[in-house]
Parts: sequence; C-alpha cells; structure tokens
Amino acid sequence: MTPLAVWAVEGIPEIVAGDDLPSIVTSAVGVLEDGDIVVVTSKIVSKAEGRQIPADDREDAITAETVRVVATKAHAGGVTRIVENRLGLVLAAAGVDSSNTPQGTILLLPVDPDASARAICTALRLQNGVRVGVVISDTLGRAWRLGQTDIAIGAAGLRVLDDLRGTTDAGGRRLDATIIAVADELAGAADLVKGKATGMPVAVIRGRGDLVGDLDEPGARSIVRLSGDDLFRLGADEAYAEGLRDGRADPNGGAQD
Amino acid sequence: MTPLAVWAVEGIPEIVAGDDLPSIVTSAVGVLEDGDIVVVTSKIVSKAEGRQIPADDREDAITAETVRVVATKAHAGGVTRIVENRLGLVLAAAGVDSSNTPQGTILLLPVDPDASARAICTALRLQNGVRVGVVISDTLGRAWRLGQTDIAIGAAGLRVLDDLRGTTDAGGRRLDATIIAVADELAGAADLVKGKATGMPVAVIRGRGDLVGDLDEPGARSIVRLSGDDLFRLGADEAYAEGLRDGRADPNGGAQD
Repeated sequence: MTPLAVWAVEGIPEIVAGDDLPSIVTSAVGVLEDGDIVVVTSKIVSKAEGRQIPADDREDAITAETVRVVATKAHAGGVTRIVENRLGLVLAAAGVDSSNTPQGTILLLPVDPDASARAICTALRLQNGVRVGVVISDTLGRAWRLGQTDIAIGAAGLRVLDDLRGTTDAGGRRLDATIIAVADELAGAADLVKGKATGMPVAVIRGRGDLVGDLDEPGARSIVRLSGDDLFRLGADEAYAEGLRDGRADPNGGAQD
Repeated sequence: MTPLAVWAVEGIPEIVAGDDLPSIVTSAVGVLEDGDIVVVTSKIVSKAEGRQIPADDREDAITAETVRVVATKAHAGGVTRIVENRLGLVLAAAGVDSSNTPQGTILLLPVDPDASARAICTALRLQNGVRVGVVISDTLGRAWRLGQTDIAIGAAGLRVLDDLRGTTDAGGRRLDATIIAVADELAGAADLVKGKATGMPVAVIRGRGDLVGDLDEPGARSIVRLSGDDLFRLGADEAYAEGLRDGRADPNGGAQD
C-alpha cells in the first residue's frame, strides 16, 4: 500500500469577500500530481463568499441557518442549540463561527460547499492537467465523544464513501457492513497538519489517488444520513418531552396498544 | 508545519491467541524515530488476547459486553442493538465483530485497550530508545452521518485530546471551544493506508511528535463523554417511549409543572 503524505500549504493570504479562491488555492498549492487531494478549511471559503456578518446578528443568523432544532443545552453563557442546518449537518450553533474572524464579526458556513469544492477542483484540474480531488472541511463535535474532529462538508472529484461491501477481507469473508467515510478521514488527516491556530487553511494529501474520479462524483452532502433514518434525530431530553406531552394528552393510549 | 507521513507496516503475521503482540509489532515496524505514533487495529489485539468465541454465542456475548442499550434498530436480518459497552463506547452490537475472523467465530473487543496500548508502547520505547505513542483503533458508525470511520479505543504515550483553549487563532482571538480529538484523527489517518481488506493492521504516523509524551498520559477512555453529560444518551424512539410511559402514568403531571 502506498504511503500517505499530508502537508499544509504555505502562502495562503488572508481571504476577504470577493477573492477568487480557486485561483488563490491553485497558485498556492504548487504542482500537483495525478490523484492528489486538496483539503480546504470551510472558513476561507466562507470569507471569499462574503459570509461574514456582524456578531450582533448571531442568534438571528443561527435561526436562519437552522432547518430544525435537534437539542439544546443550557450553560453559564446561555443556551447552545444543536441543530440540523440547511446543509443537513447536525452541529452546534448551525456552524456559525466566531473564531478566526475580525472582532465584532461572525462567519456563516459556505452557501453550497459541494459547489465550492467543484469550482476549486475544476481550477486545479485545468491548471495541473491531472485528476485531483477537493474536500471542504469543518470542525464539528460528536455524540458520545469529547473533542472535535474535522469532517468533509463539501467535496468534488473523489469518492466520499468507500463502499467495501462487495469486497472480501483477508480471510476471504465478505465485508458486509463496511462503507468507509473516507472524505471525513481525509479531512481529519488534513487537520493534523493544518492545526487550528497556525493559519494554514489548506493541505494536500498524496497517496489515495484510487479515490479520485470524475468531477461529478456525489459530494459531501451524500454523507448526510437523512433525519428520518437517524436513530438520534432528536436529543434524549427533547424526545422524552415529546413522549411525555403525548402521553399526558392521551393517557389511555397505553390500554389500546 | 512538518508534513505528516503515514504508512502501513508489512509483515504482520496472522495473529492467534497467546501471541506476544508487543514483540510482534516491535519487530515488524522497524526503526522508529522520536515522536512516531503507531496505530494498531483492535482486531489483532483481540486475537492475541484470545477474545475469539463461537459465533453461536453472539447474542449472549453482546449482552455481556453491554452496559446499557442506547437504541435498537429492526431490519430484515433481525434487530441491531446500539449499546454503551463496558469501555464506554456507544456502538453497534457492542463491537462484537464477525469480519476477518475464521468461519464460525466472532471477536470481542480487547479487554482493556488502554492497557494493551501501554504494553505495546512500552515495548516500542524499550526497543527503539525513543519516545513514541500508540493508538488502538476500531471502526465505528456515527450519529447523523453515513459510513464508518476509525477512532481511538485505546491509547498510550500521547495526548489524545489536543486542548487549544488557551491558544489564540491567527487573528489573536482566543479559541474558546476548541479541543481536538487528535487520537481519533490519527486513527482515521491510519485507516486511509491500512484499509479494511488489505490485511495490514498496523500503521506508523510520523510528523506529530508534539503529541507524544509520558507513558501515563490519559488513554482513549478519556475521550468518552459520560452518558449523564450526553445529549444523545438515548435514541429518539427510546427516549420518546420513556416520556410516553411517564406521561400516561401521571397524566396530570403537566398541571403541576
């Protein structure tokens, strides 16, 4: 198996609204090889798209980005809303971010990260004359585990889910349940070199060219599990409260079950 | 920032019960440098520990490994239990695995993956005379997202959570909420070279020596969020059912709220 090399790209300037991010990334990454994968932090995509707004509008912005509230958590500083946002992502504060932005401003997630990934991927392929993939990453919390990891919220030109279900393991047995969310693992690997505090928002991963394919491969949106299929579509407290309300409204329902 | 290199280790034989895994891994990885991190698939740790049992005992084994049932999902082949297991992990079938095991057998997770990581780490440090870290990885599904990723279920000799809360971002603002679950990102990066079907259960990661520290750093158990603190400690259907039952039992409770 080929070794993997992951490095952060130097020389990405501070991005502002209106910047031509595909050109900037293409210049900064240097010469790419066939099968390289470029991981771009969503923050600079948002900045190029002018998604910066005044911090005073934070609560309204979260509401506007929210499709539905999944859970809420009260703490000393107020209430954090865990929501499903318009991209299908379940995350705190709908992904509205106040780090790495000018004082008094906050940043919304990109409008369409899969489309942003395609635009960057197209520019990279044209410039280099080879097939490369692009992942747009963001930093999210998880259920059941502390800490955050980077995952793919946008992607183009690569298989985001590596479906091994047809393949066999070393013992010749079929790997029935195994679909690997490789785009998320790539985003996490890139985070290991980009860091959060270094101001290096782009990384290149070399060694998984087998994942790179047509520009119209399904994007990161296809990694989202639809809430109707999700066992954790609501927080435990929220689901309990719904049940309690329904039980009180129809206390004899149990007898008919 | 240093580039990251990740490669799979060749020459790990089929592991059987009683094998001295620390010695086998130490021999196979070759010469390590200070700061290297070795990622070992939990499956071979389990095999060395003799955690293989007859497949007929599967349901009983899942029950024995389970601390509490978090959610259940009915499907054509039966009912999948999503449980909190004795390691604090929330996962399907308590981590009981039937891939990559001899026909008619299944494999339980290692007894104490943090201890297994320490044993391997100790052997690697003795052999190489340098400080290295060890991660024991397993492949888990997630809430809200399709596909599985590798995460750390055991660790020794490295910081599993990289706490950036005291640090500042490129704009000089404090990174208030950012604790990176680097051990999980390392496990995912290793999975990108190990693959599931290749029979390469060990990988080396070079380039994050800053994470490597004393042998008694907290293990992967410290990444587990305690269920009392978790907004998703129960599946939505299970929590709703609890609420419904309580509401029916005390239909006037609402009037007293």
